[in-house]
Amino acid sequence: MTPPVRILLGPGPSAVHPRVLRAMSMPVIGHLDPVFIEIMEETMRLLRATFLTRNQLTFPISATGSAGMEACLVNLLEPGDTAIVGVNGVFGGRMADIVERCGATLIKVEAPWGRIIDPADVQRALQQHPGAKLVALVHAETSTGAWQPMEDIGRLVRNAGALLVADTVTSLGGCPVRVDEWLIDACYSGTQKCLSCPPGLSPVTFGPRAIEVLHRRKTKVQSWYLDLTMIERYWGADRVYHHTAPISMIYALLEALRLVEEEGLDARWRRHERNHHALKAGLAALNLPLASQEGHQLWTLNSVRVPDGVDDAGVRQALLNEFSIEIGAGLGPLRGKTWRIGLMGESSTEANVLLVLLALERLLPRFGHQVAAGTGVAAAAAALAN
Amino acid sequence: MTPPVRILLGPGPSAVHPRVLRAMSMPVIGHLDPVFIEIMEETMRLLRATFLTRNQLTFPISATGSAGMEACLVNLLEPGDTAIVGVNGVFGGRMADIVERCGATLIKVEAPWGRIIDPADVQRALQQHPGAKLVALVHAETSTGAWQPMEDIGRLVRNAGALLVADTVTSLGGCPVRVDEWLIDACYSGTQKCLSCPPGLSPVTFGPRAIEVLHRRKTKVQSWYLDLTMIERYWGADRVYHHTAPISMIYALLEALRLVEEEGLDARWRRHERNHHALKAGLAALNLPLASQEGHQLWTLNSVRVPDGVDDAGVRQALLNEFSIEIGAGLGPLRGKTWRIGLMGESSTEANVLLVLLALERLLPRFGHQVAAGTGVAAAAAALAN
Repeated sequence: MTPPVRILLGPGPSAVHPRVLRAMSMPVIGHLDPVFIEIMEETMRLLRATFLTRNQLTFPISATGSAGMEACLVNLLEPGDTAIVGVNGVFGGRMADIVERCGATLIKVEAPWGRIIDPADVQRALQQHPGAKLVALVHAETSTGAWQPMEDIGRLVRNAGALLVADTVTSLGGCPVRVDEWLIDACYSGTQKCLSCPPGLSPVTFGPRAIEVLHRRKTKVQSWYLDLTMIERYWGADRVYHHTAPISMIYALLEALRLVEEEGLDARWRRHERNHHALKAGLAALNLPLASQEGHQLWTLNSVRVPDGVDDAGVRQALLNEFSIEIGAGLGPLRGKTWRIGLMGESSTEANVLLVLLALERLLPRFGHQVAAGTGVAAAAAALAN
Repeated sequence: MTPPVRILLGPGPSAVHPRVLRAMSMPVIGHLDPVFIEIMEETMRLLRATFLTRNQLTFPISATGSAGMEACLVNLLEPGDTAIVGVNGVFGGRMADIVERCGATLIKVEAPWGRIIDPADVQRALQQHPGAKLVALVHAETSTGAWQPMEDIGRLVRNAGALLVADTVTSLGGCPVRVDEWLIDACYSGTQKCLSCPPGLSPVTFGPRAIEVLHRRKTKVQSWYLDLTMIERYWGADRVYHHTAPISMIYALLEALRLVEEEGLDARWRRHERNHHALKAGLAALNLPLASQEGHQLWTLNSVRVPDGVDDAGVRQALLNEFSIEIGAGLGPLRGKTWRIGLMGESSTEANVLLVLLALERLLPRFGHQVAAGTGVAAAAAALAN
C-alpha cells in the first residue's frame, strides 16, 4: 500500500498534516470507552470554537460532507414544508434535490453559476412564501468558487420566522464562518477541505431554534442513520448507543482541530487570503482570469477559465503525471470551461502557489496558450512581498 | 493523542492489525486519482471474494454498518411496498424501524431475543403477504449472539418472487457468508467486526434482481447520500463524482481485506469456531452459560448470562480498569442480564480467550459469584488442545 505523494490542489481532499495521519494510526478503542468520551468532548469543544458558536449540538456526522447536508435538511423538513434554496452551482442544486426527496415544496432562488445569490432575491422569496420553513444557502460554492455573503441574510430569514441553513464545506477553517453572529440555525461542513483532515466526517452544528423544530416534528426523520433525535443522545450527556462511531476518523478530526486552534482562526484566514491573492495575481499574469464573480471570489477555491482551444483534461493530466499536482475539473455547465485550484488548509502554502504557477507556465505553451516563463511566478512573488 | 491499548472483546470495534493502522496513515490522494481508481478496483475484487459473490455492485458505503442497512432498504423499498422483517433483537428492530420510515408496510416475523427466526414463520408470512417486495433477516444478531440459518431461506423467498436482504455485520469474515449460494439479493456488513478494520464503512453487495428493482423504481430514493442509482456510477465504470470517498478508510479496508485473503476464508472461519468453543467451555466451567439458543450460537459474539445478583456494570468496569479489556453490555431487554464477549477478526485469539477467562475468574468472586481459580482457563485450554 504505497499511494503516491500528491500536491493536492483540487476541490478536496487537501493535504493532511503528518500529525493527523499519525493520529489515525493510534490504537482503536470502543465508542463507549470513557477515554473516547473525553475525545468526543474535546472534539465538540474545538468544533464550536471553529464554527464560532455556543451551540451545544455541534459534532461530526459519521459520513462525508454531503451526508451533513442531508442531515440538516431531513431533520428540519417534513412533507408539506416549504424550503427556499439558493442555486448557483452543484451544491445548491444538491440541496434542492434533497429538499424534494423530503417531500417538501422547493422554491429556488437562482443565479448564474459563478455569481452569488442576491440577498434581495432571498427577501423576495420570503415575502412570496410567508410560511417557508427554511432558507438554505451555500456559503462557499465549491463548484464555482463563488463566495456568498451571509452577514445580512440571517436577519432577513429570522424576521420571516424561518431557519437559515448554511453549507460551509469549503469555507470552515479557511475564511470567516460566524455561525452565531450570522444567525445561522444549522450548518454543515466537511473535514477534507480547509480543516485538512481526510474525508469521512461532516461537522455540523444546530442552534436552539433548529432543535426546537426538530423536537416538534410530527413525523419521524426519514433517515434513521441521520436522525438527530437519536444521535443527540449519543453525542449529548446520555451517551446512548446509536451507531458505532468512526473512531479513527474522529482521532484525525480532533488532531486537525488542534492544529487549527494552534494556528489561530484569524491567522489561518489571513494565510488563505494572502495565498489566494498571490495565486490570482500569478494567474492574471498568465492571462488566466478567475471565472467567479469579481468581489466574491473564495480564498479557498479558485475557479479558473480554461483558455479557448486549450485541452482541459490534457493539462490536468500533465499536471498530475509530470508534477504530481492534482487540480479539479469544472462541474456541470462549467465542465471543460474551468479548472478548480484549491488552496485549502495545509495545501494553502506559498510553495504550492509558486509551484502550480511554475507548472502551468511550463505546460501551457505545449497546449497552445503562450505565456512567458517566469511571469506568473514573479507576479505571485510580488503579491506575497506586499 | 495517546488512546490506551485496549483488548477489544466487545461487540465491535475489534482489534486492528498494525498493517491496517499503517495503511490509514499513508498519504491521502484524490478520489478521482487514477491510483485511487485501482485501489477501488482491488477493494471491490476482495469484497466479492469475502462475500462469496460475483455481484458487480459490491463496494463499501461511505458510512458505518447501520448506513449499509439503510442503503439496502431505502434503495429497494418504495412507499406502499410490503417488507417482511425478522425481529429477534436490536438489529432486526432497527430494520423494521427503517422499513416504516420508507413508507412501506411492515410485516414482523418475531422470535424471543436470543432465539432464531423460524424459517416456517417466514414461509407463512410470505404466503399471507403474496406481494411482499422483500424479506430482511439478520444473519448474526449482535445484540443476542443468535446465528440465523440462511441456507434454506433464499429459495423460499425467491419462489415467492421477493428479494432477500441479509445483515452480515457480525458474520462477514468470521463465519460462512455465501451470498450467491444462499440466493441473497442484497447484503450489508460493517468493517469493525470480523474484518478488523476501524469503524467507518459498510461493505454492501447487490445482485442482479436487486439492481433490476432499483432501476425500475417509480420514485427517487429518499436518501440522496445512499442513492445507489448515483453511487453505482462512481464505483462502476463511469467514475462519475457523487460524494468525496473516505480515502483513508478505504486504504484501511483494502489492507484488512488483504489480510483476510492471506489467511484464507476457511482458515479464518475455523479460527473463529475454535476460539468460540474454547471460550464457551471456559465460561461453562465458571457457571456462565451462553444466553443464546443452543445450536445457533455465533462464533463471533458470545452472549453470556450475568449470574443473579452480580453487578453487570461493576464487572465490566473492573475488566476495563484492571485488565484494559472491553466487553459489551446487554441491549434492550437484555440490559443488565447479559454480557457480550466478542471474538471477532484480530480479537479472536487463543490468548484473548485465556485472558478474559483469567480476568473473570479473578474478578467474579469479588462480585459474589464464587468460582475456583484456574477452572475456566483450564477448560478452555483443554478445548483448544482438541
